[in-house]
Amino acid sequence: TIMRRSKLHNNEALSEDMLKKMISEADKVKTHAYCPYSQFRVGAALLTTDHHIYTGCNVENACNNLGVCAERNAMAKAVSEGCRSFRAIVISSDLCEQFISPCGGCRQFMREFGANWDVYLTKPDSSYLKMTVDELLPISFGPEDLSMKKLQIQNGH
Amino acid sequence: TIMRRSKLHNNEALSEDMLKKMISEADKVKTHAYCPYSQFRVGAALLTTDHHIYTGCNVENACNNLGVCAERNAMAKAVSEGCRSFRAIVISSDLCEQFISPCGGCRQFMREFGANWDVYLTKPDSSYLKMTVDELLPISFGPEDLSMKKLQIQNGH
Amino acid sequence: TIMRRSKLHNNEALSEDMLKKMISEADKVKTHAYCPYSQFRVGAALLTTDHHIYTGCNVENACNNLGVCAERNAMAKAVSEGCRSFRAIVISSDLCEQFISPCGGCRQFMREFGANWDVYLTKPDSSYLKMTVDELLPISFGPEDLSMKKLQIQNGH
Amino acid sequence: TIMRRSKLHNNEALSEDMLKKMISEADKVKTHAYCPYSQFRVGAALLTTDHHIYTGCNVENACNNLGVCAERNAMAKAVSEGCRSFRAIVISSDLCEQFISPCGGCRQFMREFGANWDVYLTKPDSSYLKMTVDELLPISFGPEDLSMKKLQIQNGH
Ligand SMILES: [Zn+2]
Ligand SMILES: [Zn+2]
Ligand SMILES: [Zn+2]
Ligand SMILES: [Zn+2]
Repeated sequence: TIMRRSKLHNNEALSEDMLKKMISEADKVKTHAYCPYSQFRVGAALLTTDHHIYTGCNVENACNNLGVCAERNAMAKAVSEGCRSFRAIVISSDLCEQFISPCGGCRQFMREFGANWDVYLTKPDSSYLKMTVDELLPISFGPEDLSMKKLQIQNGH
Repeated sequence: TIMRRSKLHNNEALSEDMLKKMISEADKVKTHAYCPYSQFRVGAALLTTDHHIYTGCNVENACNNLGVCAERNAMAKAVSEGCRSFRAIVISSDLCEQFISPCGGCRQFMREFGANWDVYLTKPDSSYLKMTVDELLPISFGPEDLSMKKLQIQNGH
Repeated sequence: TIMRRSKLHNNEALSEDMLKKMISEADKVKTHAYCPYSQFRVGAALLTTDHHIYTGCNVENACNNLGVCAERNAMAKAVSEGCRSFRAIVISSDLCEQFISPCGGCRQFMREFGANWDVYLTKPDSSYLKMTVDELLPISFGPEDLSMKKLQIQNGH
Repeated sequence: TIMRRSKLHNNEALSEDMLKKMISEADKVKTHAYCPYSQFRVGAALLTTDHHIYTGCNVENACNNLGVCAERNAMAKAVSEGCRSFRAIVISSDLCEQFISPCGGCRQFMREFGANWDVYLTKPDSSYLKMTVDELLPISFGPEDLSMKKLQIQNGH
């Protein structure tokens, strides 16, 4: 059986005020999205452990495969300002009927900076689903490469 | 609460013989890995629903960010041969103490072709951990964009 | 001034028959393109120095940024079969009025395997433009990281 | 024959002071590079046509292929702040003997925002090589998809 590491998660929840502010920032940066190919706008607001907020939007490319997601944009921006310690990220899109979920690439990019921090998947009405990075990317590997050692295995033979 | 979609999973297990063959193929293609920068070899063997096996290795680049993972290599190869219906993928590396796990980018690439198929994370001794794409990438989005509609939400206000 | 390295290029041209065959292969694999998001089909046929042909198509993803281009698909396939010595690549699309050109990411991927081999940009009527990797990606860096040493410089102060 | 579009280039050169400032900014942000895998630090400073400077560094990932280059980081940051009109970008690394050149992926990302703006490849001693995007990525395609129409062709048959 696989040990559920989400049990280890006991981050204090963001205050209602902070969360409201973060959702508002993610909505705002979404208006800067450069998405002429998909017409699908995404915004992200990242809270660092020292209480700064960095925002990012998606930036597409004529060669689809070379674009940058909103979440990676926000995280890369924070790193470029000298911050690598993340507390939570809020993701915003225009989808009304489902929570906007980060792609697998962004989950791995989040994971680089820790498995135990919060990801808020939102809808335009400000409702949200709260997950941890670890819940979104179970059995992951990261810079430490330690996480999987605790798994019990099934033997193949 | 989040509905566990893994409950829906009732793929028949691969036969021992087929699995042995797949692991052997993944180990073999691993020897073709082009990884002068990381020295980290990965191989993947993909089984399609019409019983073909496609293999791939990682192909790195002097600009790290432009490389191709073994898993994506195998899947792109299958698609280029006209097959998009996947049954299982086996991943192989040289790590002795942990199961080699697909990166988030590859999980998303797998997800494009369905959430309900099998991923075998192996060790060089042929032991393995069996997961589904959905277990590796929960709350995902894909071409249908339907999966998240069943989620109950917490309201943010 | 920058030394034009394209002067160094003296690859023998492909025979008309071989080129016709390559264009035909690129056109054929294009029909396998998985491009539900862009509806833009691309095919590529890669000739190795030991006379094998590997083909690839583009494979898109619901997260645009994670797709694989046709050219990278063909090259990764060749590498996975043990071949890294490339002679020429032919690219095919449905654009009637312009030669389909490789994206910068694929040019860098080509560059990994040498700067002095041929890239044929085609149109559906089988007309083409022949370039070298070096012409498509001047002042590049690759695994050797030697190419730039010959450049004369302008001093900034 | 291929028309050299670089002839069209007549950007006014940056002032010595501005260029010195830009190089200094690129050097500074380089210290924030997150590159535990390659140990290869890169910084970039981007000047917009309305005279703002945005900086970026490379941000690597345990899955190499998912990292973000310094140049893309700086451009994505600018877009997220509402600016898409670029004047010049300066790239900095620790290589003493060669000018740090952008990867093909970043050249394509630059191209999205125009072919006719300046890229300064520098060395740590502040010497530089000045190129345009078009010179770095000839025969490119971009959002307009018009550039290639002027090419004369060789007919394949
Ligand atoms: Zn993403
Ligand atoms: Zn991967
Ligand atoms: Zn490409
Ligand atoms: Zn780059």
